[in-house]
Formats: sequence, structure tokens, C-alpha cells
Amino acid sequence: MNFASDNWAGTHPAIAQHLLAAGSGFAVPYGNSELDRNIERRFCELFEREVAVFFVGTGTAANALALAAINRPGGVTFCHREAHMLEDECGAPEFFTHGARLAPVDGELGKIDPAKLAAEIGRFPPGFIHAGQPMAVSITQATEIGTLYRPDEIAAIAAVARRHRLPLHMDGARFANALAALQLTPAQMTWQLGVDIVSFGATKNGCWCAEALVFMDPDAAKDLPFIRKRAAQLFSKSRFIAAQFEAYLQNGLWLELAGHANAMAARLQQGIAASRRARLAWPAEANEVFAVLERSDAERLREAGAVFYPWNPPHANPGLLAENEVLLRLVASFATEAEEVDRFIELLQ
Amino acid sequence: MNFASDNWAGTHPAIAQHLLAAGSGFAVPYGNSELDRNIERRFCELFEREVAVFFVGTGTAANALALAAINRPGGVTFCHREAHMLEDECGAPEFFTHGARLAPVDGELGKIDPAKLAAEIGRFPPGFIHAGQPMAVSITQATEIGTLYRPDEIAAIAAVARRHRLPLHMDGARFANALAALQLTPAQMTWQLGVDIVSFGATKNGCWCAEALVFMDPDAAKDLPFIRKRAAQLFSKSRFIAAQFEAYLQNGLWLELAGHANAMAARLQQGIAASRRARLAWPAEANEVFAVLERSDAERLREAGAVFYPWNPPHANPGLLAENEVLLRLVASFATEAEEVDRFIELLQ
Amino acid sequence: MNFASDNWAGTHPAIAQHLLAAGSGFAVPYGNSELDRNIERRFCELFEREVAVFFVGTGTAANALALAAINRPGGVTFCHREAHMLEDECGAPEFFTHGARLAPVDGELGKIDPAKLAAEIGRFPPGFIHAGQPMAVSITQATEIGTLYRPDEIAAIAAVARRHRLPLHMDGARFANALAALQLTPAQMTWQLGVDIVSFGATKNGCWCAEALVFMDPDAAKDLPFIRKRAAQLFSKSRFIAAQFEAYLQNGLWLELAGHANAMAARLQQGIAASRRARLAWPAEANEVFAVLERSDAERLREAGAVFYPWNPPHANPGLLAENEVLLRLVASFATEAEEVDRFIELLQ
Amino acid sequence: MNFASDNWAGTHPAIAQHLLAAGSGFAVPYGNSELDRNIERRFCELFEREVAVFFVGTGTAANALALAAINRPGGVTFCHREAHMLEDECGAPEFFTHGARLAPVDGELGKIDPAKLAAEIGRFPPGFIHAGQPMAVSITQATEIGTLYRPDEIAAIAAVARRHRLPLHMDGARFANALAALQLTPAQMTWQLGVDIVSFGATKNGCWCAEALVFMDPDAAKDLPFIRKRAAQLFSKSRFIAAQFEAYLQNGLWLELAGHANAMAARLQQGIAASRRARLAWPAEANEVFAVLERSDAERLREAGAVFYPWNPPHANPGLLAENEVLLRLVASFATEAEEVDRFIELLQ
Repeated sequence: MNFASDNWAGTHPAIAQHLLAAGSGFAVPYGNSELDRNIERRFCELFEREVAVFFVGTGTAANALALAAINRPGGVTFCHREAHMLEDECGAPEFFTHGARLAPVDGELGKIDPAKLAAEIGRFPPGFIHAGQPMAVSITQATEIGTLYRPDEIAAIAAVARRHRLPLHMDGARFANALAALQLTPAQMTWQLGVDIVSFGATKNGCWCAEALVFMDPDAAKDLPFIRKRAAQLFSKSRFIAAQFEAYLQNGLWLELAGHANAMAARLQQGIAASRRARLAWPAEANEVFAVLERSDAERLREAGAVFYPWNPPHANPGLLAENEVLLRLVASFATEAEEVDRFIELLQ
Repeated sequence: MNFASDNWAGTHPAIAQHLLAAGSGFAVPYGNSELDRNIERRFCELFEREVAVFFVGTGTAANALALAAINRPGGVTFCHREAHMLEDECGAPEFFTHGARLAPVDGELGKIDPAKLAAEIGRFPPGFIHAGQPMAVSITQATEIGTLYRPDEIAAIAAVARRHRLPLHMDGARFANALAALQLTPAQMTWQLGVDIVSFGATKNGCWCAEALVFMDPDAAKDLPFIRKRAAQLFSKSRFIAAQFEAYLQNGLWLELAGHANAMAARLQQGIAASRRARLAWPAEANEVFAVLERSDAERLREAGAVFYPWNPPHANPGLLAENEVLLRLVASFATEAEEVDRFIELLQ
Repeated sequence: MNFASDNWAGTHPAIAQHLLAAGSGFAVPYGNSELDRNIERRFCELFEREVAVFFVGTGTAANALALAAINRPGGVTFCHREAHMLEDECGAPEFFTHGARLAPVDGELGKIDPAKLAAEIGRFPPGFIHAGQPMAVSITQATEIGTLYRPDEIAAIAAVARRHRLPLHMDGARFANALAALQLTPAQMTWQLGVDIVSFGATKNGCWCAEALVFMDPDAAKDLPFIRKRAAQLFSKSRFIAAQFEAYLQNGLWLELAGHANAMAARLQQGIAASRRARLAWPAEANEVFAVLERSDAERLREAGAVFYPWNPPHANPGLLAENEVLLRLVASFATEAEEVDRFIELLQ
Repeated sequence: MNFASDNWAGTHPAIAQHLLAAGSGFAVPYGNSELDRNIERRFCELFEREVAVFFVGTGTAANALALAAINRPGGVTFCHREAHMLEDECGAPEFFTHGARLAPVDGELGKIDPAKLAAEIGRFPPGFIHAGQPMAVSITQATEIGTLYRPDEIAAIAAVARRHRLPLHMDGARFANALAALQLTPAQMTWQLGVDIVSFGATKNGCWCAEALVFMDPDAAKDLPFIRKRAAQLFSKSRFIAAQFEAYLQNGLWLELAGHANAMAARLQQGIAASRRARLAWPAEANEVFAVLERSDAERLREAGAVFYPWNPPHANPGLLAENEVLLRLVASFATEAEEVDRFIELLQ
């Protein structure tokens, strides 16, 4: 009954086996092996266009280097108030941009409200040096609280960004979960809606360590090789990332794993919705369920062996909890089994 | 006949297999799993003292974060003119320290000359703000050109560093090769001689991606958890590094692999020394051989399938090459086979 | 009728004359002249304790270097949502700290609410690396909207800061105006209430360019000489700053000038309060008055020669303005004359 | 007999008086006053082309922001081994560029040798990520050791820079001294020879604090307003810099002052050349004389009231000094009087 996070799960056997097979023998290092090149091409196919792809070691690296690539002095990136890059990356985005600021934007259900985004950007009159200058908009898909931007919602945000000539970045730490849930292709969920840069995460969905930074416009990434190396994110035996991606993207494994995680979350959600001892904080749309329980029930579950984290109520939901209640985040992964979910629900009752 | 670099070799089967085994199931992420903790303890045993250990993804990260941990405004780190951190890390050490400078120090055979080190440090009078302030000394063991600091040479440099109250860092990208060649223990080659921080590399010696930053004084590393996270080097499933280290350090595998690489280099060296068509640039002491060949011979070998890089003559050896000659670096690894070496030598004749 | 800002006024004749006198002849550069030393001692007298003083060229430099001096990796400084360092310094504080974040805290009347401050700091559990770590609290006195922290309000914030072992910084761009209004001594308004570092501004109050960074604990500033030089803020002929301070602090000139500016603001406030065509947005407590006018009246005043800026309503006052209204900031300085104020009020009617 | 440095001299009376006159009354701050604009136009006239001009507070700021404006990840700037930016700015250029490196180039008489420059740049093969990438060449005119680049020498360096598409920066801390000595116009000494950016210093030549960053191509400086503000170098009452420049550039005052300083240096040189107790280290070409004396003579002069600094022999002159000798730097300024020079020479005998 481990619902702590999708990064508690190890790696999927098919990925591990493939890494074992692909890892022996000699190969050109630093991203120049045939395998590396093949995976780069695979990404172009996946996105149905010429993209520039850069493997990095962590999702934080992907996000931070995305911003470093489009950095401006006094730059300001607009993201949701509860965005991972703002709350959980120890200042890495600011560090790699030498201090470019992340400006929080509010919005319901973990999603940026386009009107509020426009208002925040509007506080930066062009050429007013003192305030700095807008440099990007970043959204998270799936969001930090397990919800999803619909295509029209992404398009609305992209329209605001485009109006101010700002690139739109998507933190896709759970990109596959979003794709699987929305039944969209990578192209449909990104550049066809106006997304320019994607942090393409695979670690949470069955890899050990496989993250890619994808630029829809390769010209925009021409400095990235230097930026990545200077950031200590150019791996000598980079094929160990490429090999993971090869297995991950083969025969739809990635979407299968994400679909499973989503299904387990849905099963969990169903059980909670039917329960009298818990309620859903908001609808789960990908692989994360947020539930409100009485503190004593949460304690009881924990003692029975369930693993999970309490979560801070979002700023948008100030009155979510009663005095004796707690908000739990329950994350399903490729490795979550239906029996565990059922046992959890059973215990909950 | 691949002598291009030890990072062209893949991973050793024992390490790959162990990763496969250790990578399944749920585990606490971000360096807090039992496996992570065990390996940390293993490092304490290895160094025969309480050390602080931080896994990172690249050798560049280890070096850069070592300096970030001891950073000073206007800081200057003294390293050999041909040090990897100065020549091959795209400015990462300066980037992660926000501009602390690397000051080149000369010395024969790729090794810092203690007298020249003292003279360079002496150019920074204490409290003379304009010049900045010394902050560290860094040596590479084995060096970039395949030589080794003897214990007394390390002690001499440490004495200079200590006199100026500067921490001494050792870039140990080929730490195991040095240990195996010198028949020293980690403690004997480091803190017992005055080394304070070690970039402990395993990637070049049979891992895919396993580097550790080791502080002899854990107090000196108290900010490192934040520095590492902010540097995007805290891996969620960090056990994939820990697992590699577990196999690597088990039953002396690491020293066995390094010893093999050294032996292959020695075999190569012997062949070259006996050859009439090549000469050694200087004695090979670890797993790298530097040889001077006529350009046409180098070309001929390359056409016959040998893989290697030409190398810039060190500043200390300006007259090394005749007009028609070229300096080759030939690197042996855990995966180098005696037959390849012999074939290379045969072809050379 | 220039109420645009106190930095539109030139320099006070006494200061200019003194600079002229003190600027000829030879003197040791880089802050080591006798004059520099004298002014440093003058600051110790002023603050009634041994302080460390560093002259810099701009208020932004003072604020940014204050944070640089107490910098931490992943550091977070808590300041009011409308603080100058957050809204008007183009990211300088983040730049000079390599990305340490400024976290906005809300509060009425431009002042941090101590309870909200405690809540924000509470979101950073000690040792939770992902969120970064608290590093400082910063208040502005007088505030950006012309209000003042009372001694007990500063003490309340200092208590929260101290509880979390965070240094308390005071942005004193209008330090003299606050002192004069509150009838406190520098010691009473700072360290006796728990303030650790002061950006001591004089430029807005009659100097051309004279800002000082004052550390109540000189030990906390031991790296500042290097930090300042590296920041390009160590002036060779630094006596041009020292000389301005000498005249400024002589015979109470600074408090006299600030008192005059405050009095002019009070006169303006009185006129507006009595007017039927404008109302005060909130009470003016130092040298800035914020008034709500109908847009057409503001336009009319501007055409009649009044100079002022419109201002964004604070987040804490969302409903401040009716559709056809505008918020004006009116700043009085040492150079403001009573006749101008009266003419403005007359025109307003 | 103060020959310590030209920054020991105060300000020229004409400049001080003009500042006094121009500093009263209200004016738009932050570089937007009429006076600021006028001086910007004055610079365009001076350079006989449309230039972009930015006032900053220190020469270090000018140099550092010049590099920040053309910054690249992993960037490397080539400058003379004894360049001020490399030896005397406490790492500011690296800090403001987030770690872009300064690569020392050798050359006689304090001047970069074009062939050595080409060789150093040649060590960075295009696209070889590990080494970083060349980003600029910087020369100092007059040099740190009082010599001058002839027009053809500047052109030769510019040719190397252009071949590698690198901008050429000139550190003109003593720009006027060079102009006056070479009898060239600003245009002739800069862009007509291939110089792209100039740090235009006036502080050492009779101002208190007046430095300008001049871009020959205004497009190359489009981010500079944000870079300068973020660097805390945008002065609110920036007219105090503009006013100094106005007086400085009026009626050729600046060249007159520089010419005087040069003449005093020449007089000093003549005296030393004729002396039997000292010899010139190399010819003085601007306002700095470097002389070799016996240690006891230097001591004697100091006791007699002469003020000067000992100087480290350049790397290019390792055998300059006998055991009992010392190298002195003797700097003349606008304020140096012929009597002082004569007294010094007299004492020397």
C-alpha cells in the first residue's frame, strides 16, 4: 500500500533489461552514440516535427535548463503558485538563470487562470526597467495536484503568452499520465496548442533516471549544449539514459504504464468517493488522488501499513479542512497493484 | 582496439546485474533509502573515518559542487594548468561558484609544483581585496596525463595549502586507478596526507553513472544537501547510483577493474617502448599511455581500426613533437582486452 | 509642483559645497582615506555601538549586498509583497545572491503582518531540502506606501525572525524620514528592536549618491569587502560618498531635511483631507501621500504643471478605486516648498 | 610627491564647480534627464557615430557589464595576463557573467601578442563543448604598465578577433591618456580599428566618479538597461555622473588634463633616465612610469615623503630585478605638479 510518490517505485523490468543489453560494449560518449542519435530521432517522430532533444538527469534540471535557454536579465517567469519549480526545486530555476524570478499566478484546481496570468503580465509595462521583464510562462501537465489542463485551457494560456511574445514551457514530469488520460498525442498536447518547450519526464513512470528537454524550435536551443555541459548535466555514458528511453518509448510501453497508474488512481478515487470516512478534495484526473480524512483515520491507515504524505491545502482552497481533518496525497504508479488499492479502501472503511 | 577513453566502455556485467536486482520494489527516494544509507556507511569504512558522502551524476558535478561547498566571494582555486576542471568542464566550476576563478599552476608531468603553487598563492596578499582571495587547492589523481602524485608529493602540496588555510581537493575521476597503481588505501592516499575533499569517480571504471563527493570533515558539508538539490543533482531514485556503488565496491571489484586497466596500459606501454615507430611521451603510471608517433603511422593505425584521440602537448613540454609527429592518448579500461593491445602493437611495428 | 519622487530633487547646497571642499587634494582611495574612516566612526556614534559600514552607490546595491552577505543555498527572504526589493530592483537581490528567492508576505498598510510572516516561514520545515531554506526577513522603513512601522510592530516581526534564527534587514531608503516622524534615535529604531542590518539611504534626502550598508554585528560582515568589490561597488575616490555623508550627518542636517519633507507631506495631506475632490488612500506618515482622485482631476492637475505618478493599488486594497478614479503618489522632499503644496491644493479644488 | 595612483587625486575644480551648478533643481531620474540625454549625444559626436552609452559607477562595473552584454554559456574572454580585469577586479567580470572565464594571453610590454592570441583562441575548436566557447577579446589602452597599443597593433588584434567573430573590448580606464599621447581621435583609436565596446573612464583623470560603457553598435546593447539595473548600477540622480562628464568633455578639458599627466610622466621619465640611481623598466608612454631602484633608495625616497607603490615584475620580464632592487610604479595625474617631479628627481640623485 505504497502511495507515497511515483518516484518510490523502482524501474520497470523491460526498461531494466533493455538497459542491461544496451549498456555493454564500446560507444561514443557524451550523447554522440548511435543509440543517443536514434532516440533523438524517436523524439522527432513522437512529436511529429523536427525537435531538439537534450537528455538530463533530473526533472529539476530539465525545468531549470529550459529557463536558462530563454533567459533574460531581470526576467520573470509566470507559473502557478503551487508549481513544482516554485515550491520544490530549492531555487534551481533561479540559480540556473542567475536570479530570474518565478512569479506566482493563482488559479483553481492547480491550473493557471488565463485572466489572472494576463493581469500579472500586465503589471510589467514594456521597457519599465525597474520591474524586470517577462520572459516565459510555465504550466505543469499533469498538475501538482493531479488535475489536467484541457486542450482549450492550454490554448487560452498560450494565447496570453503569444500576445506578450513569451515562450510557453510545459513541465511534463507526468507527461505520459496526462497524455494517457486525455487520449492526446504529444503533438496535440504541445506545439499544436502553442507549447514551445517540454520537460519530458520518464523517471516517475518506470525509469530510474530519464528526463529530456524538448524544444519545438531547434534554433531556440542552439546554446543548450554549452548550457547543459556547464550545468554538469552532460553524461559521459549518456546511453544509459538513451537506453531507458528506448525501452520506455517502445511499443507504447510508456503510455501503458501511465494508463495503469491512472487506472489505479481512478480505482482509488472510486473507493474513496464511495467511502463514508473520506472525501475527495477534488477530482483526480491522472495518477494522483487527494483525499480529506479525519486525522485519526489517516493515523490508523498509516499504522496498518499504508504509506502516503499529508499535503498542504492549496491557496485556492483555504477552507478545505475541518479542524480534525487532514489532506492526503495518494499517488499511483506503474507498480501499484489493484489489490493494494482494494486493501487500502477496505481498511479505510 | 578502442583506446579513445575509459568512458567509451559500457558497464561491467556485475554492476549491471546488481542494479537490475536492486532497482525493483519500492524505496524511499532522494537519497534516503536503506541502500543509500548503506553505501554511505560503506564509504565511511572505506575511508576509515566518518565522512559525508553525496552522490551526483557527473564528475563535473562533483568537482563543481566541491568548490561550491567552500566558496568565497572573489575566491581563487589553484589547480594544474591542464586540470580537467580548467580545460574540460565548460566553466562549470566557475558557474556553480558564481565566478570563483581557477588559477593555473605549472608543474612537470601534469603535477602541480609545490614551489610554484606557493609562489602563485603568494601573489594574493591577505586582505588585498582587488586580487580576490585564495579559497582552495585542487589536484587530480591520477592526473590528466596518466601520471601519479606520490604520497610525499601530495603531502608537500597539502603543506602549502595548510599554511594558507586552504582546503585541498582531489579530483579522483580515476581514483581507483591511482589506488591500484600505488597500492595505497583510500585513507592513505587522502586525509592521511592532508586531502580534505574527494571527487570519487566510478563512471570511468565500469559504472554507467556513479560519482560521489566525499568530505573528510562532515561539518564542512553541512550546506551540501541544499547546494546539491539547487544544482539539480539530487536524484529521486538515487538508489540507481547507490546500487552501482554497492556492486562496484563489493569484494574489491573496483580495484580489480582498475588494476586490469592499469595492466593493459602497462602492456601497451611496454609494446610502445619496444617499438621503433613510436616513443613514450612520458611514463604511464595508471591507465593512460601517451605516445609520440609519426603522423602517417597514426593515420595508418586509425585506418586499421584503432580508436584514439590526438592530444595537445602540455605547456611543460613545448618541444615534445617534431614537425611530422603527433601525440596520442591511449586509454585502457576495465573492458580492454590483451588481444586488442597486442594487435595494436603488432600493427604499430 | 514636483511630487514625482524624492529622487527628482538635486542635492542640498550644504552637501554640494562640502563635497567641493572635501574633494580636492590627494587622499588614499578605496575607502581608506581619513575622511572615510571618520564617517565610519560617525556611524558608530550614530548607532551607539560598534557597527560595520560600507558605502555603496545605490539603494539597490545596499539591499542586494545585504542579502549577499547572509546568503544561503536555496535561501528565501521574506518581505512585503510590495517591497521595493521585490517590485522595483529588476531582480538585483536575486542576482547578487545567485537566485535566493524573495517570498512575498501580505499585510495591511504596506507592512508585514507578523502572523502571516510566521505562517509563511512555517511552510519551510527545517531540513526539507526541496523547498529551500529561510534566510532572512526584510522590512522597509518608511514603507513603499508612506506608512511607518511602530516600534512594537518592528519588535513583533523581529520576534518571529529571531524564533527562526533569521537576521532582520531594514531597507531604509527613507530611514531619515521614518526617524524624524517617529522621533526615535537610529539605535531605538533598529538594533534595540532586533534589526540586524540597515540599508541606510541618503540619496533621496538631499545627497546625489550616498548609501551605506550598516551591520550591527561587524562579524557578520567579514566577507563584505570582497562581496562589495566583486559587485563593482567599491569606489576608488570613495570620499565623494564619505564627504556627502559628512555634510548630511552634521548638525542634524539629515533629520532637518527629512522633517521638512515630512512636514510638506503633512501639509499636502491636510489639504487633500479637506478637499472635496480627492480623498486620502490611507494616512501619510512620512513624506509620501497617496490620494484618490477622479481621473479627470488628475489630468487637469497635470496640465496645470503638477508632476506625479499614478500608483498601482496595493494587493491589500483591491476595492480602493472606483471606475473613474486613479491613485496618485505624491512625494515631498527636502526641496519641496510650501507654496508649491498650497498651489497644488488650490488647483485641486 | 604623490605618485601612488591617479585615483588618489581629487576632482578638478572645473568639474566640481559644474557639478555644483548642474546638481540643483528637479530633474527626471534614472538617466532620463535632459542633461543625461545631452551627454549621450555628446558621446555620439565624440565617436563620430551613433553609439549607445551607459553611465556606471566604477571602471570595474564598466568592464564587467561589457562582458555581461555579450555573455555566452561557457564563454571565454581573452585578455593580457596582467589585465586589470584579470588581476584587480576581485572576480567581478566572472561574477557578472556567471562564471565566464578570463583566459590570460602573454605579450611583451603589457600588450597582447596577436600570434599568441590566435594560438590561444585556436585551442577552442568550434563546437567542442567541453572547453567552452570563445566570447570576446579585451585589450587595455593605455595598458596596466603605462605602454600604448599603436593603431596597427590594435588593428592586428582586431583582425584575429574578427576572424573568430569575437567582439573586441577596450578597457579605457586611461582612455584620455592614450588619446592624448597618440594624438588620435576617439573614432580613430576605436571603431575605425575594429574596437566594438569601450569602457570609457574619467574617474582617474579628474572626476570623482564618472565611467561610461560605450557600444559602437547600439543593437548589441539592447539588454544593457536591464543588465545595468540588475547590477545595481543605475543611479537615480544619474545627472551627478552626467554633469561630471559635461564639464570633463567641454572645451577639451579631458585631453588637456590627460596631456598634463602625460607630460609630468615624461618629465619624471627624463629625470630617471638621466639618473645614475635608477633605470627605466621600459619606456613610459602615457602617465605611468615604471622604474627600477635599489631597495634602499626607494626606502629613502619614501622617508623623504614620496608616495608610490612597489609593483610585481610582469611575467614577460622575469629577470628584471637584481636581488637588491625593486620595481616602482610612479603615476602622474592631472594634479601632479612639475615641482613635485623635480623634487623627486632631485632626491633620487
